[in-house]
This record gives sequence, C-alpha cells and structure tokens, in this order.
Amino acid sequence: MKALRFEKGELRLVSDLDVPHRPGEALVRVTLAGICNTDLEIVRGYADFCGTPGHEFVGVVEGSPDGSQIGARVVGEINAGCGDCSLCRSGDPRHCPQRTVLGIANRDGAFAEYLSLPPLNLFVVPDRIPDRAAVFVEPLAAACEILEQVEVTPSHRVIVLGDGKLGQLIARVLATTGCRLTLVGKHPDKLKLATSAGIETALAHTGISGGADVVVEASGSPAGIGQALEMVRPRGTIVVKSTFRETAEIDISRVVVNEISLVGSRCGRFTKALEFLSRGVGDLESMITEEFPLAMGIEAFRRASSPGAIKVLLAP
Amino acid sequence: MKALRFEKGELRLVSDLDVPHRPGEALVRVTLAGICNTDLEIVRGYADFCGTPGHEFVGVVEGSPDGSQIGARVVGEINAGCGDCSLCRSGDPRHCPQRTVLGIANRDGAFAEYLSLPPLNLFVVPDRIPDRAAVFVEPLAAACEILEQVEVTPSHRVIVLGDGKLGQLIARVLATTGCRLTLVGKHPDKLKLATSAGIETALAHTGISGGADVVVEASGSPAGIGQALEMVRPRGTIVVKSTFRETAEIDISRVVVNEISLVGSRCGRFTKALEFLSRGVGDLESMITEEFPLAMGIEAFRRASSPGAIKVLLAP
Repeated sequence: MKALRFEKGELRLVSDLDVPHRPGEALVRVTLAGICNTDLEIVRGYADFCGTPGHEFVGVVEGSPDGSQIGARVVGEINAGCGDCSLCRSGDPRHCPQRTVLGIANRDGAFAEYLSLPPLNLFVVPDRIPDRAAVFVEPLAAACEILEQVEVTPSHRVIVLGDGKLGQLIARVLATTGCRLTLVGKHPDKLKLATSAGIETALAHTGISGGADVVVEASGSPAGIGQALEMVRPRGTIVVKSTFRETAEIDISRVVVNEISLVGSRCGRFTKALEFLSRGVGDLESMITEEFPLAMGIEAFRRASSPGAIKVLLAP
Repeated sequence: MKALRFEKGELRLVSDLDVPHRPGEALVRVTLAGICNTDLEIVRGYADFCGTPGHEFVGVVEGSPDGSQIGARVVGEINAGCGDCSLCRSGDPRHCPQRTVLGIANRDGAFAEYLSLPPLNLFVVPDRIPDRAAVFVEPLAAACEILEQVEVTPSHRVIVLGDGKLGQLIARVLATTGCRLTLVGKHPDKLKLATSAGIETALAHTGISGGADVVVEASGSPAGIGQALEMVRPRGTIVVKSTFRETAEIDISRVVVNEISLVGSRCGRFTKALEFLSRGVGDLESMITEEFPLAMGIEAFRRASSPGAIKVLLAP
C-alpha cells in the first residue's frame, strides 16, 4: 500500500508497504487524514518517531474481531494500552506506560491507505457528520479534555493563546461554556476566521489586558508559556497544550510567587468530541486550507508548515 | 537602630538606621529572626530588593493602633496589601497587586532591631511556643499552604525534593496527613535529621522509584523541576516552592504528554502554622544550625550559605 514514511530523518512516500496486520485488532481503510502540529514536529525529530506518522483520521472498517464494526465509518482514539495494567483495566489506556500511540509512538499511523487499531479504540461516526468534519474528532477531543481538567464557567475570563489548528478548535469548544473568551494570535486572517464564528479575538502584543483566570497555551512555541504567564492572574491556571522538540525557559519564581498552576493537557475522549459535532459541525469546513491526495503527501506537509495554513488534509 | 542592609548589590551592617514609622501600623521589636533561602537569593539579586531583608521573625509589639497588641509576643504575615482591592477586602492580601512584602518587596524587613507591619498581620504566639520555635512560623505556614492547594491523603505517595530548611519543614507538615512520604536530598546529615523524626528518606540519584502522586520541589535549584518530572506519575502534581534568580529549562512536552500539573506555592496563613506548633514543636530545635547576634549578620549569611547549614538565626 501507499504510505508516508518518516525514517532516518526523512519523510518520503512509499508504495510497497505491507498492509498492517496486528492480531486481535481492526483493519481500517483510511478515507481522510489531517496533518497536526505534532506531525510537523515529528518530522523535525520530536518523539524520536520512526514509521508512518498521522493520528487524525476517518475511515471504514474492513476487518475486526468485532464483526459488528465491519463496514462502519469510524474515527479512532490513538492510545493503545497493554490491556492489563490498572489504567487499561479502568478503561483508559491514555497513560498506560506500555502504550503505543498511532503515528507517534511504536505504531504506524494514518498517512497510509490502511491502519490498525484495537476494536475498542474505534467509534462509529453518525451519518450526519461528514468526513471533512469527522477528521477533526481527534483534535476536538484534545480540546474537550481541557474541560475535564479545569473548571470553566461563564464568570471566567479565558484566553486561548495561538490561532492555529488546535487553538481554533479549543476556542470553539470553550465558547460552549459561555466564558468570557478571547483568542489571541499573530495572524489577522486566522483571527478573522474565529471572529466570524462569534469569538472575540486580539492580535498578540497589542495591549491585551492580563488577569485571565485561565490561559490555554496552544501557540506551538516554546515562548508561549512566558506569554501566558503575562496574561494569567495570580492563582490562575495555564493549560499547556503545545508539544515541541525544544525545552522551554520558564521564570519559575513567577509561577511560585503568583501561585500559578500549569496543567499539561493531551488526549481527550472521543465521545465528548462526537457529542460536540452532533450539535452541529459549525465552521470546521472553513478551517480546511487544502486537501491533497496521499501521493502528494510531501507537498501537503510543506503546505501545512506554511504560515497561512490551518488544517491540511490527506486523502489516500 | 542596627540593621542589615542590602544596597547597591552589597550586604552590610548599619547602626544608624531610623526606627521605622509607618502611620497606622504596629512597631515590633524583633527578638529573633531566621535566614531563609529567599534571603540568600535576594543578596544574589533576586527580586531586585533594596533595603533591610528578613521576613521570618518573632518579636514584641512596642506600639500599635490596636492597643490590645502592645506588649504581646507576635509573629507576622509578610504581605501588606492596599486594603482596598477585592483581595484585601476578602481578608487575604497575599496577591494584592499593590502589596509590599516584608524584607522582599518595598518594605524593610526583620534583620533589624525594629520592624513595622499592619496590626492585622500580627499573630500572638502562645506562651508554650518558645521564640526558637515561633521563628519557624513563616516557613511552616508556607509548608501548610501546600495542603490548602493540593489534596494529600494517606493513600498518596509523596516525595519532598530538597533536604534544606524548607524541605525539612514541608516533610514534617505533610507527614501529619499520614501519606506515604519520602524526603529526597543530597546531604546525608540533613536526611538523618528527618529520619530521626520518623520520616523516610532517600539520597538523590540512588534508585528512587518514580510514580509519586505528588512531588514537592523545594530543592532551591533550577534543576529541581526536571528531577521532579522524573519522579511524578502521569497526571500527578508537582508543587513548586523554590524561588531563584535564574529561569529553569523545562521539558514542556513531558508536562503535556504526561498531563502533569505544576502548582506554584508561596505564603500560607499563620493560623495553620500556629495550630501545628500548638500540637508540639517537634524537633525544630535540632534544625537550628547556629544563632548569631545581629551585629554578626554578614557572618550569619555566610554560615547560612554553607553546605551543612539548615536554619541560621539572628538575634538583634
């Protein structure tokens, strides 16, 4: 099958990869996949990943030990646990120490014609959610995770820092709480997109008043935490979403003196994201910058890295 | 009066400083003061402080608008707020944006014969708590603050990182929860002190198993957070206590992927610390390395910075 491979520090297209076969797992034919900032970091060396990247997808089940799944249009949670530890037995493999992660850790991902995941990771997509919205379920779930970790109420002043792929989705999910929300970014075009969706926006470094109860750092940059520390009130919370290869230099004394909480936030549950989409897919379509065939994957990565891009899709 | 002054990057003893006079405040004759790690950082340039350092003290009220305080033996909370903002009106000036902080920010401190604080900041010390225990109230309150911010139960595995002044007190306060506690440090002599108090200890870098629910970082070093990240379990909490002049390099992706919470923690309420001491002063006496007269303050700072020292006191 065709796949994009990241090996020996280089991303390339191959056409002769074996269709994945993992005993006990489902085989999914990928119909659409999304390029995430983590994928861009992976090809810069983040997570030391080697193999097929890609962890945002929608597809059709072609084989599964759970016969009821065959033929279903699905999305899939990306963490596959050992099945045996206390975390896995409680039904949540997201922090299983033995886990593999689709396209990120020891498991080939979605930038291929087929992928393999455990049947329990798969969620059927309701008919009214088209592929071009369903492909957002994984990052939407990551946005929903914030509300599982931090209380956000209508009285809270919340800043989302970063107007890229993830920041845009986070702003739309947090807006459902009725909080006093501002999306802060560096790209007027991207901010305009959020404004059109009824979200208040501000250009970075243009007199944003501080004192936010919650700042969500989704800028993708090591400098983001420092900016978030300027924006959050004493005893406020910074939710940290960005992953990157570098370390970040942080003024720890400021964290201590102002008693700030920094809360790392990663994968969310797909049920929450599917619920969100079931209430309407909103303006997700307008976040799609371009869709490429998998055969043009290298070009798609280039496009996804370009300053104006939001979500770039790959169709095998 | 005599005082230790930090001015133009230099600590020196003066004998001709005016006794402080702040309208509406109490005048306290300092009987004993403690040197804290923050004081050592201040003389390295932390917080850009200029004036008399010192914020751990016990003393006797010589004047106060609240006549009932005169003659009382007191300790004092170090944050003096504007009295007017919503935080101050709620009775907690610790994060008032206009606050001054005794010996740390825009207010002369305790390494002097006299200091001034608002009457509301002062707490009478019960007779059964001697000066050499009462002088620990400020850092003990900072240790108690952790339990106001983070849940610690008998089922929790907790690591306190740092066997210095503050780490020792934090370990003794957290031990009252019945949690599974280990104090980790680099100094066998200091660890022995904690062992004698019934606290489990471990030498840093000697096969400490990770997976702690809570790690309290009180090492005083920018490298401490990295060590804490090695020790904490996924979704665990790192309480950050150390303040220092430098920034710290942090592997933010690790914070995100493991969904760690970092909780900055500073000053606590004195009532909690006085309650703790009222149940017994424990082995605080054994933490006092040496007591110097104020006139030997420079020498006392040198002693407090030496590797073997725990708490060094100054008696005006």
